[in-house]
Amino acid sequence: MIKALHNQCFCVQDEVFCGTSEFVIGGINHKFLRVDSTSTYEQRECFRVEVVLALSNKKDAYGLVRAKNLGIKTQVLESVAFKERVEFDKNLVEILKPLELDLCVLAGFMRILTPLFTHSLKAVNIHPSLLPLFKGAHGIVESYHSAMKLGGVSVHFVNDELDGGELIAQGVVVKRNGESLESYEARVHKLEHYLYPLAVLEALKG
Amino acid sequence: MIKALHNQCFCVQDEVFCGTSEFVIGGINHKFLRVDSTSTYEQRECFRVEVVLALSNKKDAYGLVRAKNLGIKTQVLESVAFKERVEFDKNLVEILKPLELDLCVLAGFMRILTPLFTHSLKAVNIHPSLLPLFKGAHGIVESYHSAMKLGGVSVHFVNDELDGGELIAQGVVVKRNGESLESYEARVHKLEHYLYPLAVLEALKG
Repeated sequence: MIKALHNQCFCVQDEVFCGTSEFVIGGINHKFLRVDSTSTYEQRECFRVEVVLALSNKKDAYGLVRAKNLGIKTQVLESVAFKERVEFDKNLVEILKPLELDLCVLAGFMRILTPLFTHSLKAVNIHPSLLPLFKGAHGIVESYHSAMKLGGVSVHFVNDELDGGELIAQGVVVKRNGESLESYEARVHKLEHYLYPLAVLEALKG
Repeated sequence: MIKALHNQCFCVQDEVFCGTSEFVIGGINHKFLRVDSTSTYEQRECFRVEVVLALSNKKDAYGLVRAKNLGIKTQVLESVAFKERVEFDKNLVEILKPLELDLCVLAGFMRILTPLFTHSLKAVNIHPSLLPLFKGAHGIVESYHSAMKLGGVSVHFVNDELDGGELIAQGVVVKRNGESLESYEARVHKLEHYLYPLAVLEALKG
């Protein structure tokens, strides 16, 4: 559960950004350029995002290690400690609300959030399929085994419906003939890592 | 209702073909190169496809004019003349079966074919959406109005289920912010014209 991107500065342009030679993405209506080390904020119309907290509902989540390595504050709120989903969400909101976040960025957070959370905080999630296809916990595997010749990744606002909130951005992975699930999965993850930061900025720019 | 591509010679390579700077396509596992006028068949592993008939169920279909302009034989079998769907299909099969076609290529043929046809002839169809999404007569409009950030085109084998046969190839159109339906539709058609010949060759090569 993070606020946005860490320690990076992006520049917004009015051209439509459509991906690389590897990926095609839709929904990114600003062009975000990574500003090189020689640029100053004054040289471009930039905005800076800051990760204020990495929160996990599992104490052994590797994301916590990653966050610590990046100098990001971490916190654990174990969901197993709560009998009721809504009790967990209440505690979650009590932690996050005082931080005055612009955005919660879910990554591998495998729980449905109740209206108690979704009505209090603006959050985005990433799902490894072309939504509305292949919702739920098995998006990659179902997409891989489907008859479709393409798969993809979707970033959406979080509401109380599983993988059902408003779409922000989507990207496409072309399936390769005879490709293994592992290889397909690796390419989906690569697209996720490419798309998510752009979609987060898109969500922040509104 | 045509057999395949007209008077063109293609070369098959074993590289995967993934589209242009404009399009990303999946399902095309051979690389088809248009052979230039100086090449001979002997220089490359080529195959030639021939359109043996353009058949329409509507006598004023513009495709008939196009076919005539290309020197392709045309025929009309008016579906309005038949009370029963199966009677039309019976007549259709009686016309096409003796031609010993490798493939029937449907283009703008807005009728469901019965098993009488689908069990007798191998046919492909093109649909302007990322199937299984937005089946039926309003694929482009539904895709345009959907919350998805991408649309697409699918080529599939024809069975007796509407837009339900096995997929051969799919291509993606990235939606543009604030784009009109007309503009989106034009880009979908451009992708159709790019994808369909490749998918037909893919279907013929098996």
